[in-house]
Amino acid sequence: MKDAVELDEYEVGYDIPAKPGMTENEIQTPCLILDMDALERNIRKMGDYAKAHGMRHRVHGKMHKSVDVAKLQERIGGAVGVCCQKVSEAEVFARGGIRDVLVSNQVRNPAKIDRLARLPKLGARTIVCVDDLANVAELSEAAARHGTLIECLVEIDCGAGRCGVTTSEAVVEIAKATEAADGLKFTGIQAYQGAMQHLDNYEDRKTKLDVAIGQVKDAVEKLEAEGISCELVSGGGTGSYYFESNSGVYNELQCGSYAFMDADYGRILDKSGKRIDQGEWENAFFILTSVMSHVKSDKAIVDAGLKAQSVDSGLPVIFGRDDVEYVKCSDEHGVVMDPGGVLKVNDKLRLVPGHCDPTANVHDWYVGVRNGVVETVWPVSARGRAY
Amino acid sequence: MKDAVELDEYEVGYDIPAKPGMTENEIQTPCLILDMDALERNIRKMGDYAKAHGMRHRVHGKMHKSVDVAKLQERIGGAVGVCCQKVSEAEVFARGGIRDVLVSNQVRNPAKIDRLARLPKLGARTIVCVDDLANVAELSEAAARHGTLIECLVEIDCGAGRCGVTTSEAVVEIAKATEAADGLKFTGIQAYQGAMQHLDNYEDRKTKLDVAIGQVKDAVEKLEAEGISCELVSGGGTGSYYFESNSGVYNELQCGSYAFMDADYGRILDKSGKRIDQGEWENAFFILTSVMSHVKSDKAIVDAGLKAQSVDSGLPVIFGRDDVEYVKCSDEHGVVMDPGGVLKVNDKLRLVPGHCDPTANVHDWYVGVRNGVVETVWPVSARGRAY
Repeated sequence: MKDAVELDEYEVGYDIPAKPGMTENEIQTPCLILDMDALERNIRKMGDYAKAHGMRHRVHGKMHKSVDVAKLQERIGGAVGVCCQKVSEAEVFARGGIRDVLVSNQVRNPAKIDRLARLPKLGARTIVCVDDLANVAELSEAAARHGTLIECLVEIDCGAGRCGVTTSEAVVEIAKATEAADGLKFTGIQAYQGAMQHLDNYEDRKTKLDVAIGQVKDAVEKLEAEGISCELVSGGGTGSYYFESNSGVYNELQCGSYAFMDADYGRILDKSGKRIDQGEWENAFFILTSVMSHVKSDKAIVDAGLKAQSVDSGLPVIFGRDDVEYVKCSDEHGVVMDPGGVLKVNDKLRLVPGHCDPTANVHDWYVGVRNGVVETVWPVSARGRAY
Repeated sequence: MKDAVELDEYEVGYDIPAKPGMTENEIQTPCLILDMDALERNIRKMGDYAKAHGMRHRVHGKMHKSVDVAKLQERIGGAVGVCCQKVSEAEVFARGGIRDVLVSNQVRNPAKIDRLARLPKLGARTIVCVDDLANVAELSEAAARHGTLIECLVEIDCGAGRCGVTTSEAVVEIAKATEAADGLKFTGIQAYQGAMQHLDNYEDRKTKLDVAIGQVKDAVEKLEAEGISCELVSGGGTGSYYFESNSGVYNELQCGSYAFMDADYGRILDKSGKRIDQGEWENAFFILTSVMSHVKSDKAIVDAGLKAQSVDSGLPVIFGRDDVEYVKCSDEHGVVMDPGGVLKVNDKLRLVPGHCDPTANVHDWYVGVRNGVVETVWPVSARGRAY
């Protein structure tokens, strides 16, 4: 049957949206495309910034879930490795050749802890976050069982209100326990303020980060008073990296979204009051969509709906167009208002998704485009690795 | 390296969340679980209803994207086949052995039309929706080229405001063109009112459906006046199937969500004013999640965030619990208020997602559970088939 219809394992339109050499117009939609020039410029820019400020840059792999993007970030952006959120993601990056992997999250399930303890055998330096004394014993037991080393960052909740301890005393207590435990090493502090990254105004973000930096400084000083030093003080995102870089206490950044940009992040303002997607970072990440019905003269229906993106942070914005607007979506369709009736069936549009991370997680492939031609097709390597 | 760490291709926690025989507590989270007893009861109930009302039931495969669920619906629910929204989905169902497949959507891209025209070679009756005269010629050319038959339903926009024609004259015009075209057959009408399915009140839904039914009746009569008969008049969803079934004009239903249920659909009211998830349909579909941090006494952090679900229709509801509440989520985390401090790290919760279709689309596997034990692990066969 397979021969009869001439399908092969990776036929365009079934398993993959495109193959190298195709023009952008031939790509099967909806799918993700990367503007390779813009992506490379973003990656180089952040790499140069980190280097100029003496910061390590551990890029956030949870954003793109791609070994290929992470390796590009190492090659041209000076990245020292990745962070990610799940053990199953860490395995993908380690197997893909990333040699320094931080799971910037808690790992508590016994099976997951066992897998984490085996990660160094894949050749990767393995670091994890801890916010509970009980977890120290769990991690130690697994590392000892496998004869491996798990490095630990004590996580401080510096405002996001999720995981992490809230006092320097708790940091010291967990750090000491880690230092004393077989198979573990206390490596430093994780302090990522996730709740302020998307505040529009620079000064509002600064106010929140000042508090976070104060918490981190206090913890580092209390550790030093006990003779415990921090090799890494890690955190910072696309909306805050300049604060951490100039804090005098952080030495590692964890930026993710800067490489791709999205509509929600793009709206926040830099110090001069300019949107960060109008100068600081370029949109490099798009959903390519096609018009597939245009029966009503002022309304085009496109093929990218809820299954091609996450709308948690708002609807996508049509890139480079102010004559048409994406106003609504359902499972499989987007409604694009076209008051001038300028769109035709099969016309393609580039959408800037509201939120890049969960949008990437819906897709299997990135289609890398340069000068209107498909240059590469990269798997979203850790898509679905949520465990 | 692989041997050294004893990973195999489908290790639990890396490639799959569970294996048959495990207890629910051993399942790696976050993942989708199906309560097999509830699922089977839902499927049998809708099958019995359709049979009693003389309706064909073409189950909506876009909801679950699973060949295994579709086959269960055929085996115990009397389903006559599936509908789905994309050609790449249709290929998955046809390859999986479903013999009657409707793409309840427009197909306009030349490469997609070519694939659609080859679908009958996979052994499936192939039906598609048309809302534009120009598409008739495109489909005909492809069917003739491949020597296959594509059946066509003219789609009426009966209130959803997306694809579909709005006048009976347009239905007749396209039907005639279809009848006259090589390789095509006019099979009837597609009229799904997607915009009313989630209106809370039964009477509000009835008002909208009365309009839709009026439009469809008018089109059928105008076709008959031209000597054209409709083999299929297809439509209807979980919030409306009783209206179409008693319309005297529809003869085929297209329900999807009834089998799984979700939090948003569950809130709509039946004729007696009762929520449909409190009698009419059971929750059979859950995100299983685990507590992975509980540093704050009144707040548990769980491992299911935006990458484990779509929140387009609201946050998930914790099943069977009124002592804890899922109040917020970010990419990898959910925040569960736990005022009584009853949850412990590694406790598991069943979440009823806000919207089943795009939530299923994020995951690779369904873990079928019966009496607390994993009975089966089914792939989300058409996940990511968005082309």
